[in-house]
Amino acid sequence: MLNVERIDHVCIAVRDLDQAMKTWGLFFGKSRPDLVYRHDPEAIEVARYFVGEVGFELMASTKEGSDVDRFIAKRGEGPMLISFKVPDAEAAMKELIEAGFELLDNRWRQWRDSRYFFMNPKYMNGVLVELID
Amino acid sequence: MLNVERIDHVCIAVRDLDQAMKTWGLFFGKSRPDLVYRHDPEAIEVARYFVGEVGFELMASTKEGSDVDRFIAKRGEGPMLISFKVPDAEAAMKELIEAGFELLDNRWRQWRDSRYFFMNPKYMNGVLVELID
Repeated sequence: MLNVERIDHVCIAVRDLDQAMKTWGLFFGKSRPDLVYRHDPEAIEVARYFVGEVGFELMASTKEGSDVDRFIAKRGEGPMLISFKVPDAEAAMKELIEAGFELLDNRWRQWRDSRYFFMNPKYMNGVLVELID
Repeated sequence: MLNVERIDHVCIAVRDLDQAMKTWGLFFGKSRPDLVYRHDPEAIEVARYFVGEVGFELMASTKEGSDVDRFIAKRGEGPMLISFKVPDAEAAMKELIEAGFELLDNRWRQWRDSRYFFMNPKYMNGVLVELID
């Protein structure tokens, strides 16, 4: 069965990444995030702060009408995604489908050396669950 | 300055704890949560699953009109709170106030052997931040 090792990262949908980095930089006592990246397939720019074994990510939209924009329009800024680390995303996808879970779509995506996919939040108590290897 | 050690737990606001435990128990491959508790001061009942160093909590209201009820009415089910572990909650509260952060109120609460308090989500990009020691 699924082997969830840890929470890999959580994403906070924010309107203004610079503003959010000021707030959270002060909170974490870090003048700079541990990682900043842009991921065009999801239309996001991200500032990541490592907090223990978890990446705490501030995530802003880079394209009008993106998923982040739609989330914020509907629910306001706040926690949008929880990503769980698994050893093998492709195997995890297969196991979840076999167990009867509904995924967002039945394909995995690539980010750097990792593969990831999403579950349908409608069936996960409103949590946009990502699995990543 | 503030010493955030790790994410202690994340809370998912859910309508029906039994239904949510079925879903997430299957997801985590655990027939029972690692911890179940009721905390009347916050009008919540909680099922916690440990995922690495983080407690993943399903949290349901035990009283009509509670904070969880109001959160769900406004935003739907989903991630409601992120709790960060600090060595000393009272010291953390003092440091945050001195740094200019707005707390929900300037008092700490007690849960078992821990003290905790909340920051005002309005100034934290919609995240209900808890600090706990």
